[in-house]
Amino acid sequence: MSQDPNKPKANTMWGGRFSSSPSALMEAINASIDFDKRLASQDIQGSLAHSNMLAQQGIIASSDRDAIHEGLQRVMAEIEGGGFAFSKALEDIHMNVESRLREIVGDPAARLHTARSRNDQVAVDVRLWVRDAHDRTDEQLTRLIKALLDKAEPHAATVMPGFTHLQSAQPVTFGHHLLAYVEMFGRDRGRIRDSRRRLNESPLGAGALAGTSFPVDRHMTAKALGFDGPTRNSLDSVSDRDSLIEFVSAASICAVHLSRLAEEIIIWMSAPFGFVRLPDRWTTGSSMMPQKRNPDAAELVRGKTGRIFGSLMALLTMMKGLPLTYSKDMQEDKEQLFDAADTIEIVLAAMTGMIQDLEPVPARMAAVAGAGFSTATDLADWLVRSLDIPFRDAHHITGRIVSEAETRGCGLEDLPLDAMQAVEPRIHAGILEVLGVENSVRSRVSFGGTAPSQVVQQIAWWRERV
Amino acid sequence: MSQDPNKPKANTMWGGRFSSSPSALMEAINASIDFDKRLASQDIQGSLAHSNMLAQQGIIASSDRDAIHEGLQRVMAEIEGGGFAFSKALEDIHMNVESRLREIVGDPAARLHTARSRNDQVAVDVRLWVRDAHDRTDEQLTRLIKALLDKAEPHAATVMPGFTHLQSAQPVTFGHHLLAYVEMFGRDRGRIRDSRRRLNESPLGAGALAGTSFPVDRHMTAKALGFDGPTRNSLDSVSDRDSLIEFVSAASICAVHLSRLAEEIIIWMSAPFGFVRLPDRWTTGSSMMPQKRNPDAAELVRGKTGRIFGSLMALLTMMKGLPLTYSKDMQEDKEQLFDAADTIEIVLAAMTGMIQDLEPVPARMAAVAGAGFSTATDLADWLVRSLDIPFRDAHHITGRIVSEAETRGCGLEDLPLDAMQAVEPRIHAGILEVLGVENSVRSRVSFGGTAPSQVVQQIAWWRERV
Amino acid sequence: MSQDPNKPKANTMWGGRFSSSPSALMEAINASIDFDKRLASQDIQGSLAHSNMLAQQGIIASSDRDAIHEGLQRVMAEIEGGGFAFSKALEDIHMNVESRLREIVGDPAARLHTARSRNDQVAVDVRLWVRDAHDRTDEQLTRLIKALLDKAEPHAATVMPGFTHLQSAQPVTFGHHLLAYVEMFGRDRGRIRDSRRRLNESPLGAGALAGTSFPVDRHMTAKALGFDGPTRNSLDSVSDRDSLIEFVSAASICAVHLSRLAEEIIIWMSAPFGFVRLPDRWTTGSSMMPQKRNPDAAELVRGKTGRIFGSLMALLTMMKGLPLTYSKDMQEDKEQLFDAADTIEIVLAAMTGMIQDLEPVPARMAAVAGAGFSTATDLADWLVRSLDIPFRDAHHITGRIVSEAETRGCGLEDLPLDAMQAVEPRIHAGILEVLGVENSVRSRVSFGGTAPSQVVQQIAWWRERV
Amino acid sequence: MSQDPNKPKANTMWGGRFSSSPSALMEAINASIDFDKRLASQDIQGSLAHSNMLAQQGIIASSDRDAIHEGLQRVMAEIEGGGFAFSKALEDIHMNVESRLREIVGDPAARLHTARSRNDQVAVDVRLWVRDAHDRTDEQLTRLIKALLDKAEPHAATVMPGFTHLQSAQPVTFGHHLLAYVEMFGRDRGRIRDSRRRLNESPLGAGALAGTSFPVDRHMTAKALGFDGPTRNSLDSVSDRDSLIEFVSAASICAVHLSRLAEEIIIWMSAPFGFVRLPDRWTTGSSMMPQKRNPDAAELVRGKTGRIFGSLMALLTMMKGLPLTYSKDMQEDKEQLFDAADTIEIVLAAMTGMIQDLEPVPARMAAVAGAGFSTATDLADWLVRSLDIPFRDAHHITGRIVSEAETRGCGLEDLPLDAMQAVEPRIHAGILEVLGVENSVRSRVSFGGTAPSQVVQQIAWWRERV
Repeated sequence: MSQDPNKPKANTMWGGRFSSSPSALMEAINASIDFDKRLASQDIQGSLAHSNMLAQQGIIASSDRDAIHEGLQRVMAEIEGGGFAFSKALEDIHMNVESRLREIVGDPAARLHTARSRNDQVAVDVRLWVRDAHDRTDEQLTRLIKALLDKAEPHAATVMPGFTHLQSAQPVTFGHHLLAYVEMFGRDRGRIRDSRRRLNESPLGAGALAGTSFPVDRHMTAKALGFDGPTRNSLDSVSDRDSLIEFVSAASICAVHLSRLAEEIIIWMSAPFGFVRLPDRWTTGSSMMPQKRNPDAAELVRGKTGRIFGSLMALLTMMKGLPLTYSKDMQEDKEQLFDAADTIEIVLAAMTGMIQDLEPVPARMAAVAGAGFSTATDLADWLVRSLDIPFRDAHHITGRIVSEAETRGCGLEDLPLDAMQAVEPRIHAGILEVLGVENSVRSRVSFGGTAPSQVVQQIAWWRERV
Repeated sequence: MSQDPNKPKANTMWGGRFSSSPSALMEAINASIDFDKRLASQDIQGSLAHSNMLAQQGIIASSDRDAIHEGLQRVMAEIEGGGFAFSKALEDIHMNVESRLREIVGDPAARLHTARSRNDQVAVDVRLWVRDAHDRTDEQLTRLIKALLDKAEPHAATVMPGFTHLQSAQPVTFGHHLLAYVEMFGRDRGRIRDSRRRLNESPLGAGALAGTSFPVDRHMTAKALGFDGPTRNSLDSVSDRDSLIEFVSAASICAVHLSRLAEEIIIWMSAPFGFVRLPDRWTTGSSMMPQKRNPDAAELVRGKTGRIFGSLMALLTMMKGLPLTYSKDMQEDKEQLFDAADTIEIVLAAMTGMIQDLEPVPARMAAVAGAGFSTATDLADWLVRSLDIPFRDAHHITGRIVSEAETRGCGLEDLPLDAMQAVEPRIHAGILEVLGVENSVRSRVSFGGTAPSQVVQQIAWWRERV
Repeated sequence: MSQDPNKPKANTMWGGRFSSSPSALMEAINASIDFDKRLASQDIQGSLAHSNMLAQQGIIASSDRDAIHEGLQRVMAEIEGGGFAFSKALEDIHMNVESRLREIVGDPAARLHTARSRNDQVAVDVRLWVRDAHDRTDEQLTRLIKALLDKAEPHAATVMPGFTHLQSAQPVTFGHHLLAYVEMFGRDRGRIRDSRRRLNESPLGAGALAGTSFPVDRHMTAKALGFDGPTRNSLDSVSDRDSLIEFVSAASICAVHLSRLAEEIIIWMSAPFGFVRLPDRWTTGSSMMPQKRNPDAAELVRGKTGRIFGSLMALLTMMKGLPLTYSKDMQEDKEQLFDAADTIEIVLAAMTGMIQDLEPVPARMAAVAGAGFSTATDLADWLVRSLDIPFRDAHHITGRIVSEAETRGCGLEDLPLDAMQAVEPRIHAGILEVLGVENSVRSRVSFGGTAPSQVVQQIAWWRERV
Repeated sequence: MSQDPNKPKANTMWGGRFSSSPSALMEAINASIDFDKRLASQDIQGSLAHSNMLAQQGIIASSDRDAIHEGLQRVMAEIEGGGFAFSKALEDIHMNVESRLREIVGDPAARLHTARSRNDQVAVDVRLWVRDAHDRTDEQLTRLIKALLDKAEPHAATVMPGFTHLQSAQPVTFGHHLLAYVEMFGRDRGRIRDSRRRLNESPLGAGALAGTSFPVDRHMTAKALGFDGPTRNSLDSVSDRDSLIEFVSAASICAVHLSRLAEEIIIWMSAPFGFVRLPDRWTTGSSMMPQKRNPDAAELVRGKTGRIFGSLMALLTMMKGLPLTYSKDMQEDKEQLFDAADTIEIVLAAMTGMIQDLEPVPARMAAVAGAGFSTATDLADWLVRSLDIPFRDAHHITGRIVSEAETRGCGLEDLPLDAMQAVEPRIHAGILEVLGVENSVRSRVSFGGTAPSQVVQQIAWWRERV
């Protein structure tokens, strides 16, 4: 999305220009330098590897290679230093770099593009960029998982209500709840890694679309750029956008997970819940209403979900029905990719910060967890386990006991034993061990269950993986 | 989408900052000034109207109103002149303007925000902006419709093949084909106008969410800002985003229409078709392959369809399930709106330019139109009309005659009369009048049909509406 | 979405058939009778109007028309009675009806298709269906608006917290809150009506794509079918899908509104909020946890939002980049339309039922509304209004008074006057009138504000419109 | 999408029922049996494994286990035989099966649900179903890849134009073009396999949400059901939908690829191109226009792309912002999953059939490939390679030679040598070897290039992988 201060003005200008000058309009719609300048570093990396290979294969002279390398390094320095003058007339990053290179080194620059086309050049640039985006996302996911583990550990036994339908169902622990998100973000990381592995093939050498007749060594450039090898089909290499779409679809699923956690933080911070607190740096307040803590950061994380879905839909739609090989439609890919990558990175970072700073309020959580007969399932399970009553019958007996407690206006743990025995005579004092929320939680020792012992075990398992 | 040259750097910085400084991260995710500065003019218009009303209602003094007006005009001049220093610390356009106003006029600035909240302020700003976007889109649609009419008129009788399934079906005229798009863009314009009418209510005076206890005159500010009246519910006024979503959904449907026309131009320009030519300004060529005319502009129009769909999906997703009233998620609305509005405007302008410059190649069109028994329907209709044969039977007879022509390797119009009579003896020479493509086209005089006389009539109808 | 009991089996069969028989596969992917049978009534209406016109124009004999009419009525009766045997071999509804008609009436059936094509036939069928869908949605929206007005009226003065960011901000009334949705659904109804008006043109007579050479009277059939007139371009008539997409996009925006209200109901029903109750018919419970009321209906309303968005995205994507005129891709339109129309209808009906049965719990709402200095804005406004303090300064003073109350652990309305005067000496007892939530609500008398008097006025305005 | 013949009627009924009966409406919106009956086989598999484990762990008696097994097998037989009476009152597949089981085996049935909840039961059912869907898709992809390899092999040297922007750019081979799709579908298969591997963990034993206090052996049931192990977090196990969304997003990317190939087939079959023919079974014709071959199957493949994108968007939207754990919204997942899985399976099968039957027309392809100076790049490369002219300069010389050929109205291969030497004197007869399209194609021997030798090598590589 545009964060360009000049856009409003540009837009105003369009109004005038559009009537009078098709060429200005064509430049406005066609030139990509405003966004593809983000590929500068990748473009130069690719040219360094390509010219090295050309020299090694005897396609250009070593002296030309050396001149090209020196020149490219100077161009890179100029760009990093902010002193590079990008030109819209030169349309894209490739021509901007090559044109400056020619100014610096002269004739050898004219040999750089041997056995290469703008089509495989941009393909390799984008592939390198999206690979970096995968790595950044992987790192942010790992940091978030660590933050969740760090927060879960001291709260492995902190009781909170487990919800279904936003209704309190069974007590769980806060640590266990956070670990549910560890699983989700762990799978998200897996998707990012699978995608990175799949994309890690070099399109350099595919030429315009048909390959080249020069004796290039595609394996050499692939290796130099950190790829596992070259792509196997030149037409596919210049016309597919899988690597971008797979990245944005993994980011979309991750955004779903972030939106769920953000929604929970927002609900937990509402006054009637009061389950957690966030320090001022993640909220905005009101000088007039000092108790107000608007969970702005969480809301932005939730709100940006749509933005990432939008980029996914944009990319899918853009590619639908395009004949091979390259069509100009595909130029639209970069802004969507850049925006989705920037967005997932910032929302992951923001969520990591919030999790680190999140302060649960155990008293409030416990109060809600204990209300509403949330240990009724435990009671039913006890009937099955201790009295060998079939589950469906135990379910029925439990319903009657809960009714009795409801009538008396007390919790299950406060119901006299004889009141329970009035419903089912075989019930004995052993039942009292399962009725408190603490007991309930402790008893769920099945693999992956909410018992603190299980939570601790799963934290340990994850610690080895981050 | 970002076209901000500084974004890559910012992004690099994030990497470092994210680990160390939550506040830098919060600023990065939270501040909106980078994009909401596009609302500067609307924000100042709103403040002028609001302060006028405050003075008229005796809520502030006239002298304060005068100072505020003078100050706001100076702020506007600074912004338009490019001399305004936007501050990220002040977060958004509202605080940037108000802070500068206070520097200029001092105390009276502190009274501007009386009986107003940032919530109704931003609502009115966006409403004014999106209203302007409707008007710009309306104007671009009208220009495109005019261009289509201008191109259709001289080609009201130019024969081309009418396609179904990209297979030549019946001959039509090029003018008639262009008029199909006039209908589509005409409906698009209708949608934009309906949406504009629906949104034209002023949220100013809704306050933070509950209205205000000051004796404001919402009808007065509504009128001053060109609205039909004030909105009727303060909660709705600060929390709905209908006007944006309806605009982007109308833009999405329009983008579908543009993508279809763009696809046709691309296919028509392929060598095997060769139906149209576009001058260099709408294409890119190759210095090595001078016959190549890449229809870049048409491809970009088609490719940007996904971008607009993406904004629609982003906005719908963003709003899904948000409780009333304002949530920070909604801050995400502006970039999607701005991008969709900029995009639909530029693709409409580009398409208008292409249509103006499009040169059909009637000979190629006629050649394809005449091939493939495309007048078989005319033959069948003649059998029904002239010989009173039931349609389904006429259809059968026609199939046999076409088979005969196919066997002989000639077109229907070249088949000897006796060959047709061998299939159906009642056939007479009158049939020859319907078999050429020119005859076929001329005969389709039903309302809205492809006969040149109908095409001319529909052009006239549309001329009165643009 | 499939609710077809036979689909799993069909699917299993595919596995086998796909390897061996292309024709079985082609039938499976190509035949539309399974879903387009829903167009039976519209198809027959169209044929009745068409044959009437043919007879009136002398294109067929009156006796043929009479036979056709009688036959079609019998076919309709068979379909309505469930006795019609739909045949997949006949592919679609049109051929199913026509084939049965021929069995019943013989030769005259062969004349029904004169001056008509399957292309304009299906276009008119769908147009009639989608028009009905608009009318059903309009009716459901009107019923929902009425239900909201009926619920709002007795609660025009029932205080509840007004939220921003799910944080209590200023007190409002429950009636006022419901009216916010009346505005949203009112605009939704406006969109449906605009869309209906726009689509109400008859494509019948457009022929396959080029119009017809028969002397048809398109105005006559248009009128007979309740259209405002015939469409103006035959190519457009058989190849556009605007009317469907506009309907589904209006339904999508409506679904957003429904999802917001559903989310609120779900949050309000959570134990910590406890703002509302819903009777058992809209919830599911648990025999073991009798206090549990899972708001299933509200969750389904919220969940089905995605389904409607999905249909919108499917239709937009399907149409992207299709050249004129008809392509088989477009056959995919019907299932999306049917599903979106069914879905919006059922969720509107479910929401109407829930609103009718919703029981607010005023005590819980009032308790939350009164907490948290929610009248701080009223205090600040009083300082401006009564003491002529500039707003920004009043804002600052209020912050200090709230701090004082917070320190003392009391609400603003319980703070002694002298404590306030210690902050700002000019404060006098008049201030006490604005500090309670009831007072706050009553004071917001600006047009569209939350004051009960305003709420009553807006209800009256809407009563005239439903 | 609905293919249910009864839906129209049901819909009509709704109209009436909605006004009078909330319970009928609630049943209509709430019951899932109409679609979740597709989970019958998975539900029974899960119950068999669960009861086995219960017996082994001593939680139920072996005799109960045996009775349950016998009963479940009978239920399965009834369902497969079509004799099972599904009941809407029993809501879902789980209760339908259990209720029938109880009729058959009596008391032991009441023990089946011990240590299990409907939440983990449905989670395991869906997980098994989606795993099967992965396997079916994998198989269909493999069949399609094989079909492409089989078609590519005999055409490894068949020349066709390589397009960019739908403009002929450089000659390639038809085999090479088909291999581009092999790469795409190969990656699609990789995504399906990664997704399958990731999802292959058993949620059984997660209970309602918190795990269970029974001494269950989750590893045992996991193994019995073919899972790699149990899931690690019970909350996540009952509330995530990753496995569905990842499947549908992989299907969406695959649909993009299919839509591109379908688009090409459609363009290739247009009369002006005439590159391929498809037999009647994949097309529909016209009895009147026998030359017409409407590529219906290809259009349906392209059109169904939107349907799959729609399901993806529906699922993403549905899950956005849902708090843990289960909410009823999630019931909407199944229809989207079923529809997307059915759709990708049928379009893959249809495309496989079309590829098998596709007949290229080499003469037409060669004619277009040879036109338009498509070997200009070869000429430029020859200048660089043979005369050591820097690439950018060679590019310029080539442009001048092409101009000369254009002026003379001949192809590059027909231009006299002296005409080339007039532009660049060093040119010699060796150049003639690169100018024909056959020569051009043969020379592109870079890895993955279009040279027949390369194409053959890549086919061999793929043969080992299918």
